[in-house]
Amino acid sequence: MIIIGEKINGAIPSVAKAIAEKNADWIRHLAKIQTEAGANFLDVCSAVPGKDVETLKWLIDLIQEVSDLPICIDSPNPHSIVEAIPFCKKPGLINSVSLEGDKIDTVFPAIAGTPWQVIALLSGKNKLSEAVEDRIEALEEIMQKVREYHIDESRVHVDPMVFSLGAIPDAYTGYAAVAKYTKEHYPKVHITSGLSNVSYGLPSRKTLNQAFLILAMQVGMDCAIIDPTSRDMIGSICATEALLKIDEYCIEYINAYNDDRFGIKKN
Amino acid sequence: MIIIGEKINGAIPSVAKAIAEKNADWIRHLAKIQTEAGANFLDVCSAVPGKDVETLKWLIDLIQEVSDLPICIDSPNPHSIVEAIPFCKKPGLINSVSLEGDKIDTVFPAIAGTPWQVIALLSGKNKLSEAVEDRIEALEEIMQKVREYHIDESRVHVDPMVFSLGAIPDAYTGYAAVAKYTKEHYPKVHITSGLSNVSYGLPSRKTLNQAFLILAMQVGMDCAIIDPTSRDMIGSICATEALLKIDEYCIEYINAYNDDRFGIKKN
Repeated sequence: MIIIGEKINGAIPSVAKAIAEKNADWIRHLAKIQTEAGANFLDVCSAVPGKDVETLKWLIDLIQEVSDLPICIDSPNPHSIVEAIPFCKKPGLINSVSLEGDKIDTVFPAIAGTPWQVIALLSGKNKLSEAVEDRIEALEEIMQKVREYHIDESRVHVDPMVFSLGAIPDAYTGYAAVAKYTKEHYPKVHITSGLSNVSYGLPSRKTLNQAFLILAMQVGMDCAIIDPTSRDMIGSICATEALLKIDEYCIEYINAYNDDRFGIKKN
Repeated sequence: MIIIGEKINGAIPSVAKAIAEKNADWIRHLAKIQTEAGANFLDVCSAVPGKDVETLKWLIDLIQEVSDLPICIDSPNPHSIVEAIPFCKKPGLINSVSLEGDKIDTVFPAIAGTPWQVIALLSGKNKLSEAVEDRIEALEEIMQKVREYHIDESRVHVDPMVFSLGAIPDAYTGYAAVAKYTKEHYPKVHITSGLSNVSYGLPSRKTLNQAFLILAMQVGMDCAIIDPTSRDMIGSICATEALLKIDEYCIEYINAYNDDRFGIKKN
C-alpha cells in the first residue's frame, strides 16, 4: 500500500495558521512525524490562492530539510503545480489532474518523459457526476491523453472519486464498480483516493472511513491519502494486506506491530 | 446482519467458573447485556462433556428468564443438541452440523418440519481441509442432505470455516472463494462464521478480526458469531452495511450511533 501523508494542507486550520505565522517548526514537525509513521509521499497543499507557488516553495523547502520522501504537489491550479515541480529534489506525484479546463494539457507536457507520477480524478469535463458510466467515460478520455503523452500506465493513479454516503447511497458501490473496471482495463494503474469525503456529515466518521478503506482495498485500491500517524488506519491497512495475501504470512503486519505503528501503544 | 452473541460459552474461563460455581447471576447478566446490545440469537455452549445436556438446560433456563431472544444451541455432540431443543421456548439455531460422524442424520430429522435453523460447517467427512475444492465438495454433500430432509435453504447458515492467517495465508482468500460460490449456487442460504480463529497467534487480534469481518461482508457474510457488546465490531458492521447499501441512507447507522452502540461512548 502506498501511503500519501495528508497532514500538510492549508485547508486544515492549524496548518493555515502555521502558514500565516510562518511557523517553520510546525511544518517540519508534520513532515517528520509522517515520515517516521511510514508515509511514502508527503502531500503539500497551500490553500493560499494568491500566493500558491510562493507558499508551496516555502512548504516544500521546509519538508525537504527533514524528510527524504518524495512530494505530492497538491493544488487546484495546474500552473502552480508545474511551477512547483522544480522545487522538488526528487520526482514525486501530482495531485491532481482531471478533464476540467486545461489541467491535463498543462501538467502532462511537464511530466512527459520524466518519472513523475500523477493522480487523475474521474470528474467530467463540466460536471462532477457520481454516475458510474460518466466516471468510466472520463477514465477513457484521460487514458487517451495518457497514451498521447506517452506516459506509462504505471505512473497513473486513478481516483474514482469518493462521494458523501449520507447524500449518495452508491458512494461506495459506485466507487467499487469504477475501481474494478479500471483495474480490469488498465491493470498497471494505481487506484488512489482520499477517504474522508465518504463520512461527511455523518457521526463517528473514523468508523466509516476505516470500513471504506478496507472494502476499497478488496476492489483494487492500492494507495490512499490518509493521516499516516493514525494507528487505526495503519492497523486496518496492515491487517487487510495480510488478509488479501498481499502480505503473505503476515510478515509486514507483525513488523509494523513490533515497530509500534498500530495496536495498543507500547511507548 | 444477524448477530449471534458468543459470550455464554463454557470454553471462556469466566463462564466455566460461573458454571462450576452455579453463579446464575453471571449467566443472566451475560444474557442481558448481549440482548441490550442488539444480538439476534444467544449462543449457549456448556463445554462440560460429562454433563452437557444438564448444563445446557441450566444455562438455557437462566437465559430465558431475562431474554426473549432465540437460543443458538452449541455443542460438539449432536445428541446433546437434539436433547436441548425442547428446553427452548422458541425455535432457534443449531451450532453446528457437518459431515462428521452422524451429526447431520441426528440433527436434521429433529429439525425437519420445524422452523429451527442450522449452521453447516464445511469440514470434510474425515478431515479438516482448507482447500477450496474440498470445502465446496462438503457444501454440495450437505446441501444434498438439506434437500433430502426438505429443509428450506433459507434456514441453512453455511460456515465456510475461518482458518488461522498466521498458518494459512489463504485463510481469507479461500474463505471468500467458498462464500462467493455458496451465494452464487444457493442464494437463499446465510453465510455465518465466528471470526476469532483468523487472528490466532497473531498480535492485535481485534484489528485482524475487524478487517476480516468487513471484507467478508463484501463477499456475502450476513451473520456473525461475535461479542455484540464490542462497540468496534458493531461500528464496523453498521458502517459496512451502510457502505454496501444494505442500509440505504445510513438510517440504521445513525440509529445505532444515537443508541450509543458504537463510537465514543456517550453515557
